[in-house]
Amino acid sequence: MLNSARTGRRPGESGSREAILRTARTLFAGKGYDGTSVRAVAARAGVDPGLVMHFFGSKAELFAHSLELPFDPAELEEVLSGDRSTLGRRIATFYLKRVFHDRAQTVLSLLRSSVTNAEAAAMLRRAVEASAIALLRRHLPGRDAALRGELVASHMMGVFLARHILRIEPLASLDEDRVIELVAPALQHYLTARLR
Amino acid sequence: MLNSARTGRRPGESGSREAILRTARTLFAGKGYDGTSVRAVAARAGVDPGLVMHFFGSKAELFAHSLELPFDPAELEEVLSGDRSTLGRRIATFYLKRVFHDRAQTVLSLLRSSVTNAEAAAMLRRAVEASAIALLRRHLPGRDAALRGELVASHMMGVFLARHILRIEPLASLDEDRVIELVAPALQHYLTARLR
Repeated sequence: MLNSARTGRRPGESGSREAILRTARTLFAGKGYDGTSVRAVAARAGVDPGLVMHFFGSKAELFAHSLELPFDPAELEEVLSGDRSTLGRRIATFYLKRVFHDRAQTVLSLLRSSVTNAEAAAMLRRAVEASAIALLRRHLPGRDAALRGELVASHMMGVFLARHILRIEPLASLDEDRVIELVAPALQHYLTARLR
Repeated sequence: MLNSARTGRRPGESGSREAILRTARTLFAGKGYDGTSVRAVAARAGVDPGLVMHFFGSKAELFAHSLELPFDPAELEEVLSGDRSTLGRRIATFYLKRVFHDRAQTVLSLLRSSVTNAEAAAMLRRAVEASAIALLRRHLPGRDAALRGELVASHMMGVFLARHILRIEPLASLDEDRVIELVAPALQHYLTARLR
């Protein structure tokens, strides 16, 4: 929560703002972007719809502010630092044991909103560009840094789909360590091989 | 359309059934499983909701019958046959130039329904098991055939997400031949390498 002394807002106001954001995250997660209205967020947060508009101006802005990426940039930065020759395995571990394990609901929420609404997909794209892609450009050498990261992330998002949404066997029931072993060589290839 | 002489149905009846299925595909594609009602399908197909229930019994059954996989099994079988050493490239080409190019709307529809509704995801899983996974078990040797196919498919579904939904650059704008070149080695690894 923002410190009210720093922002100059009254405590009640920042409390309402946080309550609206928390409610928005829950509703966007469960019902996607299209299925969530400013009115519904307001009703569930116990505030007037006008207050939501006062703080955020539009449903798109409310979504953008409530958008949480399913990882902590500092944690990703730590994963990206260090021995390049084991980066594939470290990234696979980061996805399987952090992103998909601790933040599965956030990943699901982002997927739901993105596949059902182009505006939500564009906001997620900008958030990923500003965080993960920017970090990759700093930590991977050469002009292919963003492409390498996108090949890795695309593969991992597909693994999330297969395990958490489609739940197709045998992939869905493999334990995390086995999946990490299976995908690490492909990720290592994308991260460090010469891309033909 | 089913041949009415073969099925013993009156022509008008099979015509209505086909019109309902066509409409259901369009609505499930645009609004997902949760956003589509039997009533809305009936209204748009110009029939009584009772007729939809007469043919299909429930929304879940209507979805199962309207579910189209984004590939022709005979075509996949042809891709899987032949030289094992170039299978990764052939599968990548199949996805990029057939599935994602000719049937992008079908892929999007399946994604939308699956990520927003667990029942729709389960029906898609059963359809994939009965078609693609069964084909893989016949064409790839050993007990890992299904797992190999799922690792490949999960990667390719993630590439679809990145290119067609998130539209993140540079991956989204690469031409199909370049993407095929990039992913073929990883797919080849999953299809034929010893899985550690």
